[in-house]
Amino acid sequence: MKTTSLYAAIDLGSNSFHMLVVREVAGSIQTLSRIKRKVRLAAGLNDDNTLSAEAMERGWQCLRLFAERLQDIPQAQIRVVATATLRIAVNAGEFIAKAQTLLGCPVQVISGEEEARLIYQGVAHTTGGADRRLVVDIGGASTELVTGTGAQTTALFSLSMGCVTWLERYFSDRNLARENFDRAEEAARDVLRPVADKLRYHGWQACVGASGTVQALQEIMMAQGMDERITLAKLQQLRQRAILCGRLEELEIEGLTLERALVFPSGLAILIAIFTELDIQEMTLAGGALREGLVYGMLHLTVDQDIRRRTLRNIQRRFMVDTDQAQRVANLAANFLEQVQDEWLPEPVSRDLLQSASQLHEIGLNIDFKQAPQHGAYLVRNLDLPGFTPAQKTLLATLLLNQTNPVDLSSLHQQNAVPPRAAEHLCRLLRLAIIFASRRRDDLLPDIQLRASGERLTLILPPGWLEQHPLGNELIVQESQWQSYVHWPLDVL
Amino acid sequence: MKTTSLYAAIDLGSNSFHMLVVREVAGSIQTLSRIKRKVRLAAGLNDDNTLSAEAMERGWQCLRLFAERLQDIPQAQIRVVATATLRIAVNAGEFIAKAQTLLGCPVQVISGEEEARLIYQGVAHTTGGADRRLVVDIGGASTELVTGTGAQTTALFSLSMGCVTWLERYFSDRNLARENFDRAEEAARDVLRPVADKLRYHGWQACVGASGTVQALQEIMMAQGMDERITLAKLQQLRQRAILCGRLEELEIEGLTLERALVFPSGLAILIAIFTELDIQEMTLAGGALREGLVYGMLHLTVDQDIRRRTLRNIQRRFMVDTDQAQRVANLAANFLEQVQDEWLPEPVSRDLLQSASQLHEIGLNIDFKQAPQHGAYLVRNLDLPGFTPAQKTLLATLLLNQTNPVDLSSLHQQNAVPPRAAEHLCRLLRLAIIFASRRRDDLLPDIQLRASGERLTLILPPGWLEQHPLGNELIVQESQWQSYVHWPLDVL
Repeated sequence: MKTTSLYAAIDLGSNSFHMLVVREVAGSIQTLSRIKRKVRLAAGLNDDNTLSAEAMERGWQCLRLFAERLQDIPQAQIRVVATATLRIAVNAGEFIAKAQTLLGCPVQVISGEEEARLIYQGVAHTTGGADRRLVVDIGGASTELVTGTGAQTTALFSLSMGCVTWLERYFSDRNLARENFDRAEEAARDVLRPVADKLRYHGWQACVGASGTVQALQEIMMAQGMDERITLAKLQQLRQRAILCGRLEELEIEGLTLERALVFPSGLAILIAIFTELDIQEMTLAGGALREGLVYGMLHLTVDQDIRRRTLRNIQRRFMVDTDQAQRVANLAANFLEQVQDEWLPEPVSRDLLQSASQLHEIGLNIDFKQAPQHGAYLVRNLDLPGFTPAQKTLLATLLLNQTNPVDLSSLHQQNAVPPRAAEHLCRLLRLAIIFASRRRDDLLPDIQLRASGERLTLILPPGWLEQHPLGNELIVQESQWQSYVHWPLDVL
Repeated sequence: MKTTSLYAAIDLGSNSFHMLVVREVAGSIQTLSRIKRKVRLAAGLNDDNTLSAEAMERGWQCLRLFAERLQDIPQAQIRVVATATLRIAVNAGEFIAKAQTLLGCPVQVISGEEEARLIYQGVAHTTGGADRRLVVDIGGASTELVTGTGAQTTALFSLSMGCVTWLERYFSDRNLARENFDRAEEAARDVLRPVADKLRYHGWQACVGASGTVQALQEIMMAQGMDERITLAKLQQLRQRAILCGRLEELEIEGLTLERALVFPSGLAILIAIFTELDIQEMTLAGGALREGLVYGMLHLTVDQDIRRRTLRNIQRRFMVDTDQAQRVANLAANFLEQVQDEWLPEPVSRDLLQSASQLHEIGLNIDFKQAPQHGAYLVRNLDLPGFTPAQKTLLATLLLNQTNPVDLSSLHQQNAVPPRAAEHLCRLLRLAIIFASRRRDDLLPDIQLRASGERLTLILPPGWLEQHPLGNELIVQESQWQSYVHWPLDVL
């Protein structure tokens, strides 16, 4: 790695300043460092939109740290942008001038539309799921709402409300009273009303949220064992819980970190307003936003048609997977799923996750053949997998872990991407596909019929196959035992 | 991976049959499967050296399993060898003929010398340390002793004694009496005496043991927290312990697995005889032996001058390490070690391990920058690292884990490659080298003087350096705190 392969994106936000340093490795991005300092610039904005001297000093102090790291990165590979607070501060010029001197490179104050566009690009490069999407990013002093299809945005809005400004405006007494929530939500709805029709006109199949508020919600749902989809009902529950806590300094919700607590209620109020005003059914967490948009933009990487596919190919290349074998297992698993689907009624996402697990199932071999399934699960848990949500990563890791040997049923139940029974089904089909593809040759795949009746699976093999394949026979007898231990009946005819 | 890149080595040993299937990836070997079946062929040898029908059937049954896997591997990439029991069985021809039919490929009964040569090659390809070595492999019915330098053998012996035959001959009553040990050792010394002078004439700087007996000893020493060098004193202790257990079925030694227990006392007796007869000071475990010799031979890979160096380069390539940065840290760490060596008196192996840790310290970044040190440690613990012993791997993993953030002192003490204090020293120097190389540029390395006085380290930096480098300053202040938490005084001038 030469320093010339390094890229940095800095975002001078209203709540925090962030620096992201990455390097390009074989067409994909490897993060080298993320530094975040909670500068809370927006909180230093007076009523006449003047930044206080203290707030500016906090900002400059942070930039001195960033500056040292930046010296080693070519100028053309650095982008520094400033958002809402510096858009509106009347004395922003003073702050920017010194910031540029400290950093030794230009700082761009970007418009709300440009911010929205960059956020959308960051999401499009890192988030899987449906192609037509609504992206929501609640910042410190502005909220971006964007619709788009694939890499193309169709409507862009940047609204003057954010979790820091709403905190100062509606929770300045640090009181989590119902009235404060009501006023905060009502004010947010007023801001949203003028743009709601335009966004609904373009429409979306999936709604994706970026920013700290949505991240905090994700952490809360994970900690509380809920599935990862954010719904209005869940938001209302959390609002209720916050009101019961009474005051901001008393706020305690399982999974909510101290770091995120201060601006959580105000962000929650804004999010509730967005859900109601735009009639959103559910929202998931984005894989990236503004900084990722900046970095992918500098690298001139195009948005793939299918982010998950790109991710799988990339991981296979890095861990030198036998892609023929991965595809063989994927085909066989898909064939098995098709044969049992009328009985097992898989989840909409099941087919895709079974394919992904098949494509990745051998990555652990690259570490060592001993405990390869454990190594594979470790890698999937820890690798950055753009296009997969945290819950989907957990399910994939669990499927890899249980690809052979005795089944750990509890791990299949400790994920929230699909219902437990659906995870069991995926696991059974993957295991069988791996066994029958183990010769690593297409011409040696037996023609197998698979029947499901309730949880009972029946394998119908070509006549004489078991007698002719003693190792295969041993594998299937063993597998049938392992499945029976966890009460998965498997008959072989 | 095409099946044409697969290689198989099968060894029809006197105690077990083994199959090793590997593939070649970028000039190095990745193990795909190891199958072992304890056939105990030697136990089926009658007094007139006739193999019993039952023993032959056990062998053929095992080969039916191997055969199915072999079908997918090109004939030229399979080698099947048979050793001592089939060398001496008068009806070996009958066994071999059917074995060849079952496997569909030739089975070579190799001479003792050829076996010794292959074992030596397997060791030379996979084991680090001194260049002039004695290799010891105690098999089921024969024991190989080889001296050599680098890839060249200088003396080869295959002796008719092994852990299965010695079990049948001296422990046939399953009694672990002192008398049985005495007789077993005496008989072994009689077998060794004619070759001892020749071996001693060639001499060695390092003695390396292969086979199950040495593997079992390694496991026992690890389980009991001893360092990994096998010495006569340790062997005598274990003999004493076995005698106290009384009978073979009562044998219980911490770290000794059931699987290895049966032939452990007989193997131990032979090993004690070898230590005394050849006056061996210490022995370490080989990274490979016969099967590895077969595989490396088929792949026509040459023995590297420096196996560890090859391993480090290979791992760096696989995990896309910034090798310039790794070398920068290695140089700085070496420079620091040199500055303090008069005070800290490093272990002989310390310099080499510090270099290795430096070369590998960033491998975890390839998984994810979050918790990269933990990922690096996970990889080192689980990767096959030819040239490093298990204890050295553990130490390297610990150094990688503790390359930054608060120090986990207990992990530095839970390794047995070097004394705890020596591990602490390596850790401190590595951490400092990483901090000062963090700019990733040779021209920005400050000129640092390092002084040690007892455990107190003093860093003397160029005048004004700290003021000019706020991020560096922050890092060093933080590091000094972290070191102080574990009572490592670090002053900065």
